[in-house]
Amino acid sequence: MQLGFIGLGTMGRPMALHLMNGGHGMAVFARRAEATRPLAAAGAGVCPTPAAVAGRSEVVFTMVTGTRDVEQVLLGPEGVVHGARPGSLVVDTSTIDPTATRAIAARLGERGVDMLDSPVSGGPQGARDATLTMMVGGPAEAVERAKPLFALLGPKVIHVGESGTGQTTKACHQLALLVNALGAAEALALAGRCGLDVERVRQVMMGGMASSRVLDVFGARMASRDFAAGIESRLYHKDLDIALRLAHDRGAALPAASLTMQFVNALMGRDRGRDDLSALITLIEEMSGDRAGSPSATAE
Amino acid sequence: MQLGFIGLGTMGRPMALHLMNGGHGMAVFARRAEATRPLAAAGAGVCPTPAAVAGRSEVVFTMVTGTRDVEQVLLGPEGVVHGARPGSLVVDTSTIDPTATRAIAARLGERGVDMLDSPVSGGPQGARDATLTMMVGGPAEAVERAKPLFALLGPKVIHVGESGTGQTTKACHQLALLVNALGAAEALALAGRCGLDVERVRQVMMGGMASSRVLDVFGARMASRDFAAGIESRLYHKDLDIALRLAHDRGAALPAASLTMQFVNALMGRDRGRDDLSALITLIEEMSGDRAGSPSATAE
Repeated sequence: MQLGFIGLGTMGRPMALHLMNGGHGMAVFARRAEATRPLAAAGAGVCPTPAAVAGRSEVVFTMVTGTRDVEQVLLGPEGVVHGARPGSLVVDTSTIDPTATRAIAARLGERGVDMLDSPVSGGPQGARDATLTMMVGGPAEAVERAKPLFALLGPKVIHVGESGTGQTTKACHQLALLVNALGAAEALALAGRCGLDVERVRQVMMGGMASSRVLDVFGARMASRDFAAGIESRLYHKDLDIALRLAHDRGAALPAASLTMQFVNALMGRDRGRDDLSALITLIEEMSGDRAGSPSATAE
Repeated sequence: MQLGFIGLGTMGRPMALHLMNGGHGMAVFARRAEATRPLAAAGAGVCPTPAAVAGRSEVVFTMVTGTRDVEQVLLGPEGVVHGARPGSLVVDTSTIDPTATRAIAARLGERGVDMLDSPVSGGPQGARDATLTMMVGGPAEAVERAKPLFALLGPKVIHVGESGTGQTTKACHQLALLVNALGAAEALALAGRCGLDVERVRQVMMGGMASSRVLDVFGARMASRDFAAGIESRLYHKDLDIALRLAHDRGAALPAASLTMQFVNALMGRDRGRDDLSALITLIEEMSGDRAGSPSATAE
């Protein structure tokens, strides 16, 4: 099949390569030209605009950052909508606003182009290892059409419902992840303040009901103070904003998510948006005047 | 070995039976006489006081509810301290205050009795299946002595440090668990408010970075509205109080744990202390005026 891929960052690049390795032709576009090089080296055609990608593709994937980025590459002056053939399919794997997604899908629909929202979970590691989970919203027949392609990106594809429901599911997912991360930060900060070995406490917790992938991945970075690795907290800042906007529009009060947002805001305010989300623990620690395992902590 | 067990509730009863099945003699005490019957039927000696249990035992286990209960059965007028032989060992598997634990251990130490604090994770299911995780504080030689007994209760025994550190670790564990439970409740409540199938969203989340044992166990009950099963929220109310007391004494600010406590307080205020912790979702839903999946929810 002839495919297109727009957005070739940390997530998009390995995903596009997996699709090519599945035997599909590939046309690509990225705003930063240098991002297209690894794809061109693998045999992809580099296009000057998203519209040009769409003109060459049966299915166009997008993986960009925010709602406006998706609107730009799909509906902007040089967007997919101006080049897409009727009967083609757009699969947006970005994490964006569900309401905007439905509006975009409607605009594409007017041109005879189907759209799936298919945000993913698994991060850069999942993209590289082709172990992503895909949360898909849109018409069932379009999901069936995309399934062989999804299979090249990860083993789990869940069709949640109509257009936008993939994004809504992702928003709920990120909300739970982020509140859990703040809880893990507080638990490990308390352990450190009490003079315990934070990594040891984390390992104990991984054996109990407190066990979670957040504690496994982000908790390990909290314990090792490795805030450079992982997923940039500015992306979670964007995602939690989507969930809280949804809550705002639906009249749903979410006290813990709202509190968590204040701490992610604080990371942004400290220009730590490129740090890993595990940096949350430093906010909790510094608020009370020390760091985990510092000499000022007395033994519990 | 001749063992004693004090406190034969949902947790203590199966734990005492596992120890007996390991080939050990058993003397028991419970405040409610009827709780001793299954143990007596299995061949345990029923004693009229904790002191009498201690008089017959090399190692005495306790599994009662709160700090005062432990103080009562160990140090009260008919407590273990009055019957325990020098050189014997007390293993408290209750979840109580770490500071009080150290004071109790010191009192027992004056009588030549060692004490381990060894709160557990795994709940009634873990107690029945002998899959508990034990978080142990106290002298290393006492831990070595107790290890063959711990092995009858579960595969994971972690010696964290000196007296009280088992309780401190459990407090951190429960803190992380509870904040995560509130986050799961908000995520699933938002999914329901948006008209999504809550159980389906939960299953998607279990495939991603939001995956956790809390979402697995409590999330499933939130989705199925099965608030009767599981672990009574009044016990988590007690445990989170221990963590927040520790934070108070250490000058550690824990905003998410503090917020979470308000919701567990609200469950108590509604006389829902015997409901499972998963009932948290009803507070989030009702605050905004509906229930997950109710007809008033419009499709997302």
